[in-house]
Amino acid sequence: MKRVTILGATGSVGSSTLDLIERAPERFEVIALTANRDVDKLAAAAIRTRAKLAVVADPSCLDALRDALAGSGVEARAGAEAVCDAARAGADWTMAAIVGTAGLKPVMAALEAGGTVALANKEALVSAGDVMTAAACAHATTLLPVDSEHNAVFQCLDRTAPRGVRKIILTASGGPFRTTPFEAMRAITPTQAVAHPNWSMGAKISVDSATMMNKGLELIEAFHLFPVRADQLDILVHAQSVVHSMVEYVDGSVLAQLGTPDMRTPISYALAWPERMATPCEPLDLARIGRLDFEATDSVRFPALTLARDALAAGGARPAILNAANEVAVAAFLAGRVGFLEIAAIVADTLARYDPAAPDSLDAVLAIDAEARAYAGERVKDCVL
Amino acid sequence: MKRVTILGATGSVGSSTLDLIERAPERFEVIALTANRDVDKLAAAAIRTRAKLAVVADPSCLDALRDALAGSGVEARAGAEAVCDAARAGADWTMAAIVGTAGLKPVMAALEAGGTVALANKEALVSAGDVMTAAACAHATTLLPVDSEHNAVFQCLDRTAPRGVRKIILTASGGPFRTTPFEAMRAITPTQAVAHPNWSMGAKISVDSATMMNKGLELIEAFHLFPVRADQLDILVHAQSVVHSMVEYVDGSVLAQLGTPDMRTPISYALAWPERMATPCEPLDLARIGRLDFEATDSVRFPALTLARDALAAGGARPAILNAANEVAVAAFLAGRVGFLEIAAIVADTLARYDPAAPDSLDAVLAIDAEARAYAGERVKDCVL
Repeated sequence: MKRVTILGATGSVGSSTLDLIERAPERFEVIALTANRDVDKLAAAAIRTRAKLAVVADPSCLDALRDALAGSGVEARAGAEAVCDAARAGADWTMAAIVGTAGLKPVMAALEAGGTVALANKEALVSAGDVMTAAACAHATTLLPVDSEHNAVFQCLDRTAPRGVRKIILTASGGPFRTTPFEAMRAITPTQAVAHPNWSMGAKISVDSATMMNKGLELIEAFHLFPVRADQLDILVHAQSVVHSMVEYVDGSVLAQLGTPDMRTPISYALAWPERMATPCEPLDLARIGRLDFEATDSVRFPALTLARDALAAGGARPAILNAANEVAVAAFLAGRVGFLEIAAIVADTLARYDPAAPDSLDAVLAIDAEARAYAGERVKDCVL
Repeated sequence: MKRVTILGATGSVGSSTLDLIERAPERFEVIALTANRDVDKLAAAAIRTRAKLAVVADPSCLDALRDALAGSGVEARAGAEAVCDAARAGADWTMAAIVGTAGLKPVMAALEAGGTVALANKEALVSAGDVMTAAACAHATTLLPVDSEHNAVFQCLDRTAPRGVRKIILTASGGPFRTTPFEAMRAITPTQAVAHPNWSMGAKISVDSATMMNKGLELIEAFHLFPVRADQLDILVHAQSVVHSMVEYVDGSVLAQLGTPDMRTPISYALAWPERMATPCEPLDLARIGRLDFEATDSVRFPALTLARDALAAGGARPAILNAANEVAVAAFLAGRVGFLEIAAIVADTLARYDPAAPDSLDAVLAIDAEARAYAGERVKDCVL
C-alpha cells in the first residue's frame, strides 16, 4: 500500500488524484487531505477515503470542518501551519496541488519530509526553483512533475542517454485567443479567458493559458526540473493539445508524449511511477482526430512569453517577481478591475520597478513575493476600467 | 572502440551505417564488410575504413575483389559461407542489412556469435521469427531493431513498465498510392512504385511500401521483437512519415518517436545504444511542416495487409510462405512480368496452395522458403502481361 497525502485535494488536480486513488483502493492508504475553504468537499473526500487527517487552510472554517467530520474518525485541523504539518504526516507520496504562492511552504515541507513529491504547483519551481531543488536533493526526495507538459518531458527523457538531449520542446495550445487579432484582445472578458479550448482547469491557470504566461512559467519550471540550459528550451504552438511535449535528441530523434487531454494521465503516471496504472481516460484515436497542427509562437500578441524568457535568463529574484505580479494581475483581471492586455503590462512594470538581490532561502523568496505583490497592487490601482 | 561488422555494406542501410561510422572513426573499428556483387563500392569502403575482411557473396566476383584490394592489407573472400564467416569474425556489433531471404543464414551466424546485432533484414523475423529469437536468447545476443518503425517502438518502450503497454501502433506512409483509386492501381509501373514519397530505399522495399506488404511484414516483425500479442499491434496511416511509430500505455499515454525521414537516425540509435550519438540528420521543424495527418488503413485497396495479419494469426509456416511468395512476385513485377495488383494475388494463391507444417529450424524455414518460391514462380508464369 502506498501512503498518500494530497495538498489541495478539492481543486482540479486534487479531485482527479482522488478519483484515481478511489478506483484502486487496494493500492493506496490516504494519510492527509487539505483544502483552502471547501469544507464540504474536503470532508466528504476524507470520509470516503478514510483519511487520517483533514486540514482546511482557512482557520475560520475549523468549526464547520469539525461538524462535517463528526463521528467519522478523521482528525480535523485548520490553518497554514496545519497544512504544512499535513505535508509532514508520513506519506510515501504527496501530491502538491495547492495553486499559487500559498503552496510554497507546504511544498517545501513535503520536500523536506522525503519520499516522493508529485508537483502540480508551478510557483514552487518558478519563484523558488533553486531553493526547492536544493531541498529535494538534500533530502533525497523524488520530485515528479504533474503538469501535462513536464510530465510528458519526463516520460520522453531517455534516462540512459541524458547527454543526448538537444532540446526540450514544450507544446502550447495557444489558449482561447491563439488566432485573436491583437486589437481585439483588449476587450477580452474573464468569462472568455477562462473558457480553455482543450483542458478543464482552474480559473487562474486558464487565464495564464490565455495570456500564455502559463507557458512562460512552464519554461522556468522545466529549467529547474531537467538538466538543460535555458537556450535548450523551446515552445511550439499545437492547438489540439494532443502532443503534450517533446524531447529532441542529438541523433535527430524526437520523442513525444501524446494523449487525450485528461489530467488523470499525468497524475496516474506520477502515482504509479516507475510503473504504470490503468486509467479510465479515453484512448487517443489519431485516425479520428485526423490531423495535428503546429506553428511558431507569437511573442508580439503574447508578450508574457518574452517576459518569462527574460526573467529566466536573468535569474535571481526575477522569476519570483514575474510570478507574484502575474498572480496579482490575474486576480485583478478576474475581478473585473483590469483589462486582459494589462495583465502583461502590470507584470512588466513590476519587473521594471523592483529589482532586489537573488533570494537564498524560502523566507527571502516569500519576502520578495510579498514586496512584488505590493508593487503590482499599486500598479493595478492605476488602471481604470 | 566498438568492433563493428556490416553485412550488406553497399546497400542503402549499409551505406548509411558506413557514413555514421566514418564520421566517428575514433569510436569504431571495422572488422568485416560484405556485399552481394558491388565489388567497387565494397573495396573502396573496406580500404577507407581499414577493414580486416571484405567478402563478396557472388563467388564469380572474387578475382575482381582481390584486384581492387591489392596492396591494401584487406583480406578478400567470396561466397555464401564466407559471408557467414564474416558474421562470426569477432565484432561486438553487427549490422545485418542483407535484403531478403539471402540474409537469413548470415543473421543466424551473427546471432550465434553473440554481442549486439542491429537487424535491418526484415525477413529474418518474418520467416524465421521463432528460430531467430530463440537463438538470440540462447546466446544472450542483444537484438536491436533498425527499421525506422521498430526502432521508434524500441525508443518508446518504457522499460520500467513493460506490463503497461496497451498497443503498439506502427505508422505507415501509405506509399505512393495512398490515394490512388483501386481501378487505377492495375496500371501502376515499376518506376511509379519505386518512387517512394518520403524515404530513399532499395527497389524491393519500395515496392513493398507501395503494396503496403512492407507494413504487413513489419507487423510480423514487431510481434517477434516486442512482448505483445498480435491483437495489440495496430497500423495507422500517416502520410508525412514524421511519426515513425508509437506505443500506447494503459494510463492513456502514447509515446511517439518523430524525426525527419533519414535512416541514419535509427541506425545511429542502434550504433550508440544505450547512449546516443550526434548525426548530421536535419533536425525536425514541426512549425515549418505545419501539420501531421493520420487516417485508418484501407485493406480493400491494400490486400497485403490482410494477408499479413492472417499469416501472423495462423503462425507456423504461413509468414515464411507470405514472405517468399512476395519476394518472387515483387521481382516479377520489377522485371515487368506481372502487374501491380498481381503481387498480392500471387501471394494469396501461394498461401492457398501450399500449407506445410511449422518449421522447427532454419533449414526447415529455408526448405519452406524454396518450396514457396517454386509455387509462386509457377503462379507468375500463369500471368500474361
